[in-house]
Amino acid sequence: MSAKDIYHEHVRNALVKDGWEITHDPLWLKWNRKDAYIDLGAERIIIANKAKRKIAVEVKSFVSASEMRDLCEAVGQFVLYRRALAKNDPRRELFLAVREEVYQRLFTEPDGQELCATEGLKLIVFDEDTQEIVKWIP
Amino acid sequence: MSAKDIYHEHVRNALVKDGWEITHDPLWLKWNRKDAYIDLGAERIIIANKAKRKIAVEVKSFVSASEMRDLCEAVGQFVLYRRALAKNDPRRELFLAVREEVYQRLFTEPDGQELCATEGLKLIVFDEDTQEIVKWIP
Repeated sequence: MSAKDIYHEHVRNALVKDGWEITHDPLWLKWNRKDAYIDLGAERIIIANKAKRKIAVEVKSFVSASEMRDLCEAVGQFVLYRRALAKNDPRRELFLAVREEVYQRLFTEPDGQELCATEGLKLIVFDEDTQEIVKWIP
Repeated sequence: MSAKDIYHEHVRNALVKDGWEITHDPLWLKWNRKDAYIDLGAERIIIANKAKRKIAVEVKSFVSASEMRDLCEAVGQFVLYRRALAKNDPRRELFLAVREEVYQRLFTEPDGQELCATEGLKLIVFDEDTQEIVKWIP
């Protein structure tokens, strides 16, 4: 398991506890007319369904030396995945999953709140110990 | 000069040829209430003025092994810088500067055009040989 993937299973478990069915389709995102698929070096996206709601979840561990660079990568990935989803699976909503500690540090102060509001960033906040979802934003 | 900076001077020269005055203020972007400044490992932002117009230019070289990852980084940086500018220098418009070759490959097909339109990404396209600006988008 790569360092990038350390919270993938936590988020998957938290979604299952919350009643989501994880589907096994990998999410392939095509860009332009080329056959090349988006390879962002990102954690694998989690695809989940619950009743009629469909979500895609980008897990970001925020474990590099620069939290701002992690945030930048997370936002860039979010924007590109959202663009590709809008074309390929428009009813599926995209969320960025972050640990509660990361949420408190980056997203509870004005800059983080405004980033979410103005850029349409949706968050799933999870507790890494209980592996449960703490909050959905919005 | 780091590999990241290879097109910084090209863009700077192209702006000067186009009549822009490059100011020497570094662009410090503060995030939340912390004293920490945004360090995105990005190329230095170019700040320029012309008559009453004020711009900030993020130069992205697109020279890594993955063009999609470069795009992702460029978009993430653009969004965070735009957010910080809106607060600290709201009349200054942000542009992403890319070589003409990168523009043709990534931004002339539907996905690239839609990315610019829906995410409000503004571009300066430059010719790396003549070191001139070829196009402003929009």
